Amino acid sequence: MTASPASNPAYGALTNQGNSTNIVWHHSTVTREARAYQRGHRSAILWFTGLSGSGKSTLANAVNSALFEQGMACYVLDGDNIRHGLCKDLGFSDSDREENIRRIGEVAKLFLDAGVVVLTAFVSPFKADRDRARALVGEGDFIEIHCAADLGVCEERDTKGLYAKARAGEIKEFTGISSPYEEPELPELRVDTGGQGLEECVTHIIGYLQGQGIIPELS
Amino acid sequence: MTASPASNPAYGALTNQGNSTNIVWHHSTVTREARAYQRGHRSAILWFTGLSGSGKSTLANAVNSALFEQGMACYVLDGDNIRHGLCKDLGFSDSDREENIRRIGEVAKLFLDAGVVVLTAFVSPFKADRDRARALVGEGDFIEIHCAADLGVCEERDTKGLYAKARAGEIKEFTGISSPYEEPELPELRVDTGGQGLEECVTHIIGYLQGQGIIPELS
Repeated sequence: MTASPASNPAYGALTNQGNSTNIVWHHSTVTREARAYQRGHRSAILWFTGLSGSGKSTLANAVNSALFEQGMACYVLDGDNIRHGLCKDLGFSDSDREENIRRIGEVAKLFLDAGVVVLTAFVSPFKADRDRARALVGEGDFIEIHCAADLGVCEERDTKGLYAKARAGEIKEFTGISSPYEEPELPELRVDTGGQGLEECVTHIIGYLQGQGIIPELS
Repeated sequence: MTASPASNPAYGALTNQGNSTNIVWHHSTVTREARAYQRGHRSAILWFTGLSGSGKSTLANAVNSALFEQGMACYVLDGDNIRHGLCKDLGFSDSDREENIRRIGEVAKLFLDAGVVVLTAFVSPFKADRDRARALVGEGDFIEIHCAADLGVCEERDTKGLYAKARAGEIKEFTGISSPYEEPELPELRVDTGGQGLEECVTHIIGYLQGQGIIPELS
């Protein structure tokens, strides 16, 4: 998958004479286009949105694994690596939730620029927040993926026991119970994570990325 | 440089039968180790620190280009892509400067986890802030690079005209003029960006990364 930069005249000749210090480099910034050329795939933001328990993180990690196994640059941003790090100063007030999604959008944009297919897995219940993240990047760079499992299914799964706590009033403003989830009206993809199996959902997304020319068809 | 994951038994067999949807993936998170194996190099944070005009960003971009041309995953974080994006809500008060460096450290940690050699180019004048960024990651992951050009050299260069403004009192708390720069006491690397040429500085850093086993010797 990795094209030799030496084979592209845009990068000039790469001299390599057995002396590790004798390399030729360019002083300009490495562009996103150069990264795509070298890696053999474009970058994109795959923005998974859906209720708690709808399978966002599971699906994002499965797609990430599939991309990784094909040698692609990819990375998942989710609660595990964001809420305890970059956003650990934020709580769950309206303004903090908005700032949380803003930062995730900005970090996703950095990964996009770095040539990485970045997958974000957050409830992100508000259309305005998602649209702000979309507006940070170019046409075709932001792929909104609605993990459309019904509330009933998510609550029955209740993988983290959060719905029970929300019903008991122990968690306030819980999306789907005491706070709204604004469904995407025209997401690039809607996957039935309530009914379909994981493999089918992954296949759906991979096929879309291939169709958009973001990743190559497998040979 | 890119090792086939199929050649590593840890990743299992990769089936690829001419059917783009017929791929095998694993549902677990892709580890940093797996990324290093696939890419053929480890990730690291190269934290450039030094006065304004000391050549941090120029040097970071030159090292980045050298790594990129060898097919490595690498990315530069600097004022251009951070101050207008992730940190655009922050000003230059003490607490905002501290929060700025905190966020950069957290984002660098994400890139580290994603298998990328990430180069940060910020003045980062305070030892405590740099040490907090260092403490976020493991031993050997944080490589502090002091761009040690003398103040006189930086001020004479005054590439952005900032020293003139600082001397005229138009910029308050300007590092080196009206705010201290706390030199790293034991940085992993100190490069003489005042006296040495760019190529020599790049060679110094590349040699260090090879010596540490982060990137391979060039064949």
